Amino acid sequence: MDISFITSVIDYFATLKMPTIFEFVGTFAFAISGIRLASAKHFDWFGAYVVGVATAIGGGTFRDMMLGTTPFWMTDPIYLCWSGLALLWVILFGKWLIRLHNTFFIFDTVGLALFTVVGIQKSLDYGFPLWVGIVMGAMTGAAGGVIRDVFINEIPLIFRKEIYAIACVVGGIVFGICMWLGAETLVTHAVCGISVFLTRVLAVKYHICLPTLKGSHVQEEE
Amino acid sequence: MDISFITSVIDYFATLKMPTIFEFVGTFAFAISGIRLASAKHFDWFGAYVVGVATAIGGGTFRDMMLGTTPFWMTDPIYLCWSGLALLWVILFGKWLIRLHNTFFIFDTVGLALFTVVGIQKSLDYGFPLWVGIVMGAMTGAAGGVIRDVFINEIPLIFRKEIYAIACVVGGIVFGICMWLGAETLVTHAVCGISVFLTRVLAVKYHICLPTLKGSHVQEEE
Amino acid sequence: MDISFITSVIDYFATLKMPTIFEFVGTFAFAISGIRLASAKHFDWFGAYVVGVATAIGGGTFRDMMLGTTPFWMTDPIYLCWSGLALLWVILFGKWLIRLHNTFFIFDTVGLALFTVVGIQKSLDYGFPLWVGIVMGAMTGAAGGVIRDVFINEIPLIFRKEIYAIACVVGGIVFGICMWLGAETLVTHAVCGISVFLTRVLAVKYHICLPTLKGSHVQEEE
Repeated sequence: MDISFITSVIDYFATLKMPTIFEFVGTFAFAISGIRLASAKHFDWFGAYVVGVATAIGGGTFRDMMLGTTPFWMTDPIYLCWSGLALLWVILFGKWLIRLHNTFFIFDTVGLALFTVVGIQKSLDYGFPLWVGIVMGAMTGAAGGVIRDVFINEIPLIFRKEIYAIACVVGGIVFGICMWLGAETLVTHAVCGISVFLTRVLAVKYHICLPTLKGSHVQEEE
Repeated sequence: MDISFITSVIDYFATLKMPTIFEFVGTFAFAISGIRLASAKHFDWFGAYVVGVATAIGGGTFRDMMLGTTPFWMTDPIYLCWSGLALLWVILFGKWLIRLHNTFFIFDTVGLALFTVVGIQKSLDYGFPLWVGIVMGAMTGAAGGVIRDVFINEIPLIFRKEIYAIACVVGGIVFGICMWLGAETLVTHAVCGISVFLTRVLAVKYHICLPTLKGSHVQEEE
Repeated sequence: MDISFITSVIDYFATLKMPTIFEFVGTFAFAISGIRLASAKHFDWFGAYVVGVATAIGGGTFRDMMLGTTPFWMTDPIYLCWSGLALLWVILFGKWLIRLHNTFFIFDTVGLALFTVVGIQKSLDYGFPLWVGIVMGAMTGAAGGVIRDVFINEIPLIFRKEIYAIACVVGGIVFGICMWLGAETLVTHAVCGISVFLTRVLAVKYHICLPTLKGSHVQEEE
């Protein structure tokens, strides 16, 4: 690993555009969340990597299979590489991850916002109506976390706690309003992403959550 | 919500045909079964809705992805709406659900019968042989329940108890016999659906179930 | 079942070629592994069959859905039949399975090797680059076991123990080296398959495994 390698890596990062940086941040944060939960269950490196990858690309993969197109990560190895970097990060700096808790919350939410925008836009590009786009946006953002929790044999977190996928739905509705108002694509994307971001951040800050179903009527019977 | 809205809703329901009504009954009953089990695990409203939707449309979604076509629910928002109605129903009338146990068993079985017929016919329409149709009929009817149980982190119920997916297979064989006898499509569908319905109802009434594997040879070793 | 039936069965097996025999061995061994674990959880015959089938064909099914083609088992009923034979075998000879432990380990590893080769070659045939082929080879070999473990509600074994999917990745890299050296397809396939086989056998024999993530940094926080 000589200087020229490092220079070319820096050159590579210098050419990245804003959406690509967001995508890196999101993929990295999603993969970290999978790898951390896997490490709590004492998975080996390979298992942790697979859970990390599944968290990062699982939602988009199901979206693309439903849209009838090739899963996005099969056209560019960068997503698997980023997940590999996330694994390396946890192996090397795992013990400092707690201090970075708030940083990763922000990263994760940036990823959620970006994945939602990508999911909605891709669905519209394939000719589907907005309501399908909203579902696909939420799936791109949240389904990876569901797969992660199924792999580590826990009840999916997003079904019980926090405003998470709902933030994607809010973003999707905002996306629709922007379209209806005739906003430019770039503006629509930005406003949608910011809505997702703010919805989740505010919900967590003010402990806003959805009502829970009681379920007493079931437990008696089962 | 004025009178004209209610009138138009009634008008809408008045125009529904028999298969559509069955489809509503089935989707509603499947979604209810998902939402009830989710509420026993204290899911929030969103989580319960996702489990309800997955139960109602999960089987058909995997069927359509395997057949190589767009999942059926992406062409009409009605399925997501019905699942929303099911959520509203559980929120409002949850405590009376126990008394309606037998009603929902009938609804659920009507759904199973209809989903089986739809799954078989769609596979045949896409040029697959009957045995693929039988598998797809059973998948349409039963896979949603498997996804539901994975989401709530339980061993899928249909793998351990009751005649359920087997009823779909019986219906599929009856479908094949009707075709072989040269019956009309409508008759074939009706006889197939009734076979599924009766197989499950009779199996539950007379406590018929499949033998269980002992598994002693494994437990010693693991 | 008269003599002519038995003769025609023998004739059928006599016409099988080497890859088909490997495929039978692999499918049978994978299905057995699913059925045995299902029986430890007291699944009924149908549930055990579904878990066996999912173990045997699940990986290839996801591979084919991602490649954008019809799942392989929908073109030939033989895979479902072989899984049925595996169920029959466990029902009849279940109690002797422990003694055959080493035999089934070999069968399972032969299956893993073959599934890897098939997964890589099919991806290349569909125009994907080698790195996608390696992922698809590992998925064909290992994803069935993940689905099996999700169905029986356990943390997937391959994420925690043994060199398993890693053996597929080693085989994939060897596949690439053979291609780069300009080896013939048949030679490439054989060398790749043997690499997978030897990697797993040697790893198990010498207790080689990947490092485990500590996870202490997570448990404190959750």
